[in-house]
Amino acid sequence: MPSISAKGLQMPASPIRKLVPYAEEAKKRGTHVIHLNIGQPDIKTPQIALDAVRNHTIEVLAYSMTEGSEQYREKIAAYYAKKDIQVTSNDIIVTTGGSEALSFVMGTIMDAEDEIIIPEPFYANYNGFATASGVNVVPIVSTIENNFALPAIADFEKLITPKTKAILICNPGNPTGYLYSKDEIQQLARLVKKHNLFLVADEVYREFTYEGRKHYSILQEEGLEEHAIIVDSVSKRYSMCGARIGCLVSKNKEVVQTAMKFAQARLSPPTFAQIASEAALDTPQAYFDDVIEEYAERRNILISELQKLEGVKVAIPQGAFYCVVELPISNSDDFAQWLLEKFDVDGKTVMVAPAAGFYATKGLGENQIRIAYVLKKEQLISAVQILGAALKKYNG
Amino acid sequence: MPSISAKGLQMPASPIRKLVPYAEEAKKRGTHVIHLNIGQPDIKTPQIALDAVRNHTIEVLAYSMTEGSEQYREKIAAYYAKKDIQVTSNDIIVTTGGSEALSFVMGTIMDAEDEIIIPEPFYANYNGFATASGVNVVPIVSTIENNFALPAIADFEKLITPKTKAILICNPGNPTGYLYSKDEIQQLARLVKKHNLFLVADEVYREFTYEGRKHYSILQEEGLEEHAIIVDSVSKRYSMCGARIGCLVSKNKEVVQTAMKFAQARLSPPTFAQIASEAALDTPQAYFDDVIEEYAERRNILISELQKLEGVKVAIPQGAFYCVVELPISNSDDFAQWLLEKFDVDGKTVMVAPAAGFYATKGLGENQIRIAYVLKKEQLISAVQILGAALKKYNG
Ligand SMILES: Cc1ncc(COP(=O)(O)O)c(C=O)c1O
Ligand SMILES: Cc1ncc(COP(=O)(O)O)c(C=O)c1O
Repeated sequence: MPSISAKGLQMPASPIRKLVPYAEEAKKRGTHVIHLNIGQPDIKTPQIALDAVRNHTIEVLAYSMTEGSEQYREKIAAYYAKKDIQVTSNDIIVTTGGSEALSFVMGTIMDAEDEIIIPEPFYANYNGFATASGVNVVPIVSTIENNFALPAIADFEKLITPKTKAILICNPGNPTGYLYSKDEIQQLARLVKKHNLFLVADEVYREFTYEGRKHYSILQEEGLEEHAIIVDSVSKRYSMCGARIGCLVSKNKEVVQTAMKFAQARLSPPTFAQIASEAALDTPQAYFDDVIEEYAERRNILISELQKLEGVKVAIPQGAFYCVVELPISNSDDFAQWLLEKFDVDGKTVMVAPAAGFYATKGLGENQIRIAYVLKKEQLISAVQILGAALKKYNG
Repeated sequence: MPSISAKGLQMPASPIRKLVPYAEEAKKRGTHVIHLNIGQPDIKTPQIALDAVRNHTIEVLAYSMTEGSEQYREKIAAYYAKKDIQVTSNDIIVTTGGSEALSFVMGTIMDAEDEIIIPEPFYANYNGFATASGVNVVPIVSTIENNFALPAIADFEKLITPKTKAILICNPGNPTGYLYSKDEIQQLARLVKKHNLFLVADEVYREFTYEGRKHYSILQEEGLEEHAIIVDSVSKRYSMCGARIGCLVSKNKEVVQTAMKFAQARLSPPTFAQIASEAALDTPQAYFDDVIEEYAERRNILISELQKLEGVKVAIPQGAFYCVVELPISNSDDFAQWLLEKFDVDGKTVMVAPAAGFYATKGLGENQIRIAYVLKKEQLISAVQILGAALKKYNG
């Protein structure tokens, strides 16, 4: 039998995937599993986007332009203009999800063995895209004590080698919920300019910020044009994860031209999804106001409920819809499995994402979990109560 | 300014792309350009597929399963069963076009510097996926004199090194239109078993065969289960290139499990497109009969028209909807550009794909072009007449 690639063996499996069979078993036993583990919003997709697809008049479902339709890219540019980001349609490549933008970025700016510095904990699939590209992720620890704020610039500098090509941040962060301040972005800007690196910002959660805080994009930072690359997506913004539309944005012409070569190889992004995504840009502001209010309430309830639990530490999220929680346990992989295998309160249990999978440094995050607050308030309250009862039993 | 990757510099640009500005210029001058250069069918997408999307009842456009919905994969398996290919839904991963299946295959079975042998001329984007994966394409020449039949097995064996991981064929071929016989597939089967290699078959044109010839899939070949990987797509079959749905099929469990890790990193294939593709499987046979008849007629007319031209050699295609044509010229890149820049007959000219871009060996194909017969018969006739007149002028 021919053997698969070394790269294939190294490809990380999703950290939640291991738990899936246990969740299925629990469901078979009749246990109701509350999913705190996934970032799939329950929010309705804007009607305008769904209707655009229902009303399509396509007769020949043809390839779109490789970079996405001109009309759609112009509307995206107009969206960014409203956010104080000055780009043209030529600076934008429409991709199949933010996921594809991430893999285009890896290919465009990094060769095998090159290094990319990423504050950990980070979105686990960065590991997958890095492995697929043969690129090395160099983690820099951010801590729950600091609410996962930007690590000290001096610590970044210690990690920079001739192989370092880029720094990747997720802003606001999955799993941390941390929103980088303008000052932090400016510190990073100085750093990448000094060392001639790219700064890649995954801004797929840019719309989700709380307590009146404003998102500051790396593309708002003057003088950073040649360094800055944004990864964006419609998935969470409009609760349309299944569309598979995102984009890569950069004012650096060489980056866009090179990413285009990767894009050409795969021909085009999906057509129906572009129709939906273009229409979604006309979603009334009221939709977002409602959604943000809903998430803000969920966040407040989740945090205050969690803070009632003994020995539990929560990093207060300022953006996105995740938070990292430290528990009085030593192995959250084991705890998460136990929750599904051995525990229930009146036939209900919770599924959480063990946080170790979000760290590249072995041993970190083993007493942490990630909670996604994409569920209704009552469910969140009940989930935290179950978690509290579980901790008592698990530890007692 | 930070520098882009060496890989990015090596990424091949589409061979047709260079001509696009000349085509645009021609159109601006008011010249009508007949496109013989693209594989975008003009055939209508099955109504049943378009309607399924128009009638969607989605409220939250969620991620689908990473491997594609269970129901869709079961229907794909049933489709293959009708084609004498015995697979289950577990052997199938739904991908974002055949394109994504190709890149998953590269990642799954090959590491950087590994070699994949591909008969040339071949689909130009194989180069792109190989470069993106750091893999080396080792071409083996097939010739227009032999109608692009399978090269001698002894010639394959000369190219096999310890780095060789796979042989990739496109059956039927783009750009050759060649349909491998059962005997040729069996020769390849013996070869890959002897040398413990994978055999990857890009069968995206499997439905398009002519003169009553039948497609023989590598997955029909007994004993090849651990070696065979199919790349498939709905793009051409149902004229739904814009859906971006394809699949990877293998009975080799390790291959599927590993490809799944690449698939997990990108989350899921597009949801609307899966709805369309699933519905497309219920397209009535009459649709295909009509489509094949239409392509067969176009093929016959194209071939007989081309054969009237002096000094022109045509490889008779038995499948797909392309053919490679040898012209009495020395540089088809130059000729193709000249056609757009300097030539017209009554305000009309043609755009062709220079064939050099389909060869990996430098210097090959320079007197060849690829013609896609995805246009109406009258247009094809008029295009060949223009080509004939052009050759006279160009050479005279
Ligand atoms: C931080 C982050 N980046 C990128 C993605 C990729 O999303 P998509 O490919 O759906 O745009 C996700 C999805 O969860 C994410 O959390
Ligand atoms: C031989 C071959 N393979 C694969 C593809 C990829 O097609 P898609 O990604 O649309 O399925 C094409 C498209 O033209 C092709 O000609």
